[in-house]
Amino acid sequence: MPIVKVCFSPLLYPLYASKETVTVVVDVLRATSAICTAFEHGIARVIPVPDLEDTYFYKDHDDVIVAAERGGEIVEGFVYGNSPFSYMNDNVKGKTLVITTTNGTQAIEAAKDSEIILVGSFLNFEAITNMLRGINRDVMVLCAGWKNRFNLEDTLFAGAVTENLLEAGFSYATDSDAALASLSLYKSAKHDMYEFLSNSSHRNRLERLHLEEDVKYCLSFNKSTCVPFLKEDALIDASKHGGIEMVRASLSENKVTNP
Amino acid sequence: MPIVKVCFSPLLYPLYASKETVTVVVDVLRATSAICTAFEHGIARVIPVPDLEDTYFYKDHDDVIVAAERGGEIVEGFVYGNSPFSYMNDNVKGKTLVITTTNGTQAIEAAKDSEIILVGSFLNFEAITNMLRGINRDVMVLCAGWKNRFNLEDTLFAGAVTENLLEAGFSYATDSDAALASLSLYKSAKHDMYEFLSNSSHRNRLERLHLEEDVKYCLSFNKSTCVPFLKEDALIDASKHGGIEMVRASLSENKVTNP
Repeated sequence: MPIVKVCFSPLLYPLYASKETVTVVVDVLRATSAICTAFEHGIARVIPVPDLEDTYFYKDHDDVIVAAERGGEIVEGFVYGNSPFSYMNDNVKGKTLVITTTNGTQAIEAAKDSEIILVGSFLNFEAITNMLRGINRDVMVLCAGWKNRFNLEDTLFAGAVTENLLEAGFSYATDSDAALASLSLYKSAKHDMYEFLSNSSHRNRLERLHLEEDVKYCLSFNKSTCVPFLKEDALIDASKHGGIEMVRASLSENKVTNP
Repeated sequence: MPIVKVCFSPLLYPLYASKETVTVVVDVLRATSAICTAFEHGIARVIPVPDLEDTYFYKDHDDVIVAAERGGEIVEGFVYGNSPFSYMNDNVKGKTLVITTTNGTQAIEAAKDSEIILVGSFLNFEAITNMLRGINRDVMVLCAGWKNRFNLEDTLFAGAVTENLLEAGFSYATDSDAALASLSLYKSAKHDMYEFLSNSSHRNRLERLHLEEDVKYCLSFNKSTCVPFLKEDALIDASKHGGIEMVRASLSENKVTNP
């Protein structure tokens, strides 16, 4: 029986990591929500880069949008940050998004040893959990947190995934205290997650920046059917590129080339 | 207004640490519960050592009890581990306990930069929270976890401390998502913590070793009035050595000698 685990910080990830796990990276506020929104509006691929310096290489490339966020704000000299609303336009269609953020892109980097890395958010919740059940292997939800610290909103997403996999009769188990804690917190929060997060550090940080609408949007379910999947160094939308067969095939390829 | 914070892993502690914080180290199952029990039965001081090798130096000293636990079991060649029940006898009175455990003693080591380090458990809950409110400074609850991973039982203790400081009209605040999560989990669990932990990894680990009674005892409140306080390299019971005045005086001394 496959198991579901949760890791609360990229810094702790090596303690939990197992190559043969499907890792779902989440940074609800707002990196992975922005990435899902960009895919929903037609971006072709997303290159997550941990370091700001690495984005300069891509600037002024044709058909490339470069986005940079630090501490909740767009980095000076950039037009795009990690607000989902910036990606709701036709300008993104068919382009490549190169993005660096405070937490989310670092978390993707931390998980790079996993055979399968997916990007999740509430916005693509149903699509991502359907994919997980289809793959039917051990699942690790890696919470990006805030500068390697625990945060509540990513934990709620982890709890929602845990509930979906454990309780909907889909035959997952868990031996993870972090998954049990996430599940309990999600059950306490799910009737009104925005209210539950009213004292949370990052909701307050974003409200100081007048980003309440971003927070509300990022807490809404199933606005996108995308399944961002890391293939080599870029995320592509598995739902538009062969779906689960492509993801599974990639797994087999990895096994052959990286035994 | 002083704040209360929670850290879920000794590995994350440097991200949260601030020298001018009172750090409460907790390892409910079972190191800090055993230490509190030893003080309640008259042990004079406790020397926590992270490495097993460091205990050998103390073996065969007069008036010294050496205890060693790894993975829930007493290390071969030792009589004492971290079961609270082993310390409920007159043999411990006036002696020094040298103890190394899988998680708790490492967590104390990780916190050594704090100006004030206390050791907490449900067993001395009222005594420790009274001391915290008396000191009236920022509080960090450092959960020992399991090999640097998140665990539920230490989180429940952190939630109980957070509830006590935030909600009893004692004028603490928090900006810590981990404290908010601990508080929510404790509220879900407090009517029956043993039941709440029924799927937790360490309760199950200890039950495989037939240590259910240890688990139940470690989840009971206020069996001891001790306040273990780290002075130089040994814990002493502040409640029997000048109480809060001694703890505060020690703080001032530290400021003079380590500006």
